[in-house]
Amino acid sequence: MLYEISEKAIQLENQGKKIIKFNLGDPDLPTPPEIVEAAYEAIKQGKTKYSSAAGEKKLREELASIHEVSVDNVVVTTGSKWAIFSLIFLLLKRGGNIVVPSPHWTSYELIAKKVGAEFRSLKRDLDSDWKVDVEKIDELIDENTRLVILNSPNNPTSKVIDDKTFSEIVQIANSKGAKVLSDEVYSDISFVKAKSILDFSLDNILVDGFSKSFLMTGWRIGYVIVEKDLAKKMIKLNQITTTCVPAFIQYGALKGLESRKRIVDEIRTQFKKRADVAHNVLSKTKMKFSRPDAPFYFFPKVDGLDSERFALDMLDRGVAVAPGTAFGDYREYFRIALTRPENEIREGLEKLCEALP
Amino acid sequence: MLYEISEKAIQLENQGKKIIKFNLGDPDLPTPPEIVEAAYEAIKQGKTKYSSAAGEKKLREELASIHEVSVDNVVVTTGSKWAIFSLIFLLLKRGGNIVVPSPHWTSYELIAKKVGAEFRSLKRDLDSDWKVDVEKIDELIDENTRLVILNSPNNPTSKVIDDKTFSEIVQIANSKGAKVLSDEVYSDISFVKAKSILDFSLDNILVDGFSKSFLMTGWRIGYVIVEKDLAKKMIKLNQITTTCVPAFIQYGALKGLESRKRIVDEIRTQFKKRADVAHNVLSKTKMKFSRPDAPFYFFPKVDGLDSERFALDMLDRGVAVAPGTAFGDYREYFRIALTRPENEIREGLEKLCEALP
Repeated sequence: MLYEISEKAIQLENQGKKIIKFNLGDPDLPTPPEIVEAAYEAIKQGKTKYSSAAGEKKLREELASIHEVSVDNVVVTTGSKWAIFSLIFLLLKRGGNIVVPSPHWTSYELIAKKVGAEFRSLKRDLDSDWKVDVEKIDELIDENTRLVILNSPNNPTSKVIDDKTFSEIVQIANSKGAKVLSDEVYSDISFVKAKSILDFSLDNILVDGFSKSFLMTGWRIGYVIVEKDLAKKMIKLNQITTTCVPAFIQYGALKGLESRKRIVDEIRTQFKKRADVAHNVLSKTKMKFSRPDAPFYFFPKVDGLDSERFALDMLDRGVAVAPGTAFGDYREYFRIALTRPENEIREGLEKLCEALP
Repeated sequence: MLYEISEKAIQLENQGKKIIKFNLGDPDLPTPPEIVEAAYEAIKQGKTKYSSAAGEKKLREELASIHEVSVDNVVVTTGSKWAIFSLIFLLLKRGGNIVVPSPHWTSYELIAKKVGAEFRSLKRDLDSDWKVDVEKIDELIDENTRLVILNSPNNPTSKVIDDKTFSEIVQIANSKGAKVLSDEVYSDISFVKAKSILDFSLDNILVDGFSKSFLMTGWRIGYVIVEKDLAKKMIKLNQITTTCVPAFIQYGALKGLESRKRIVDEIRTQFKKRADVAHNVLSKTKMKFSRPDAPFYFFPKVDGLDSERFALDMLDRGVAVAPGTAFGDYREYFRIALTRPENEIREGLEKLCEALP
């Protein structure tokens, strides 16, 4: 129901209603001006033609250098979501299963179902502070498992998987012939250091993007680090689908990489402040939740809540949140994205607290 | 081999080689400045966030108005190629066949194969001026045919299907339960008027784009006009794949629509001149070809030619063309895209003529 809420919120806004949008991981902060100007310059220089389905050479080189891999391991994609769809499509269209610790980002499950893959989720809970039970995930992974998807920091819980657990999961998956797809889009802006899949063999897959760390959500640019053969397959799939990320967008992203540390530090600082505000407000309510390790999300639980009904109700009251059911079997939970300015966060959270049953 | 040639040409350019690129339908003319400025304005206004997977409301409304359909029939897509992939994926991932008159755009076949659909092509030939044999296409369409793809004006022949033939094909396809997907991306800039699928029931599908008519190839924006249920399915697929076309790109395209007639008239005039130049040069050679009804392509035949070898040879000589095998069973043919300035066209055509066996 994540995307239904999103489309409905847009419709209400188009009708002139004011909606405090806590429903999407889409920060209110503007794209840094140097990125905007670099993209504009590139347009004026004619970077408006078809370009390589692998990504612009300079951007691939820079990403390869940052991640200490070869250029051939880098594929630039139309958002990290397209990377995930294309990997699941390539690896599972002839069958197999995907194992994912829950709660999980909506799209993993919707993509798996759309491609016809079996989706196996491992339920985690708030009481154990969202830890992954390694024994249980071991039981879920079998010879038909093609991918184990890790997402640390996690959407929607904002929790990071500890290094030991992360390593154990990779080892188990790889020993059974499954790749780990590690979605690390919140990693650069995390409040705590998160383990990266690049510490392991490139038979695994890093998915990353510019949306969150460079405030480029609507620009649709992400990338993958992967072994060369799978990279080639992804490039071939790009050729017959999205063709390329507009080259001028890639030059904007490349400019962003120059100021990477400053940009991500600013985002992290800003969102840490917001998380503290939200923590203070929510601590005074009956909501249960875990302190986030990263932007942007809180994933509180309210005993007995029907979060789908609650999310629709709240939309009528001018606040958009995502129901917990969008992330697995979490009906009593909902997700708040702190992607609005502090005053709106206070206003929105108050409205939420008032409306709680 | 279309995309291999393209990637190889980019690699050679990256190495500093000069390549006259006749290999892609990617016009040299710059994107009109009003489109560029409108996109830049939209970026500065913050249209850099996630937007609707259906497309920006204003752009959909304008397209609906131009094509005299409802807004719900319009889906904005990450290029017309993504529209075609997503339609084939949605309609054929559980099997079925696609019928296409050949020669045909490479991607139709590659997409069908990637999705696991059966691809049935009807061979046409130069001797009959690329006409579609209606009886033969009737024989190819059966109860498992989900789509018949028409592409008029055609890539690579630049020929338009006459109104009577077009209507007969639609009638046959629809009477057997197959939809016609009409790829009309060259229609607006055609030298002669081409029949549109919108003259028939919306159970059929119009695929169109901004790449060719608005010189926006690298911006990746296209659209589909289709009945509402299939539109909804496409929007849902966008949600879990490309998310949206960057909103600022949509505002650029919207601005382009304001000056639609002027922009397409300019392109048509420019390319008519180029086609006349090419016609004069090629008429003096042993190449056989049909006079184009539209930009951008010539698809000449040279008896006994191995066009794949020829295309690779020509790349070494600094001219990129697409071998006929990229468009079906046309080894003796190759495609020349007149997407370079007139002086380069002359230079490139001379090099081609010199190199002919």
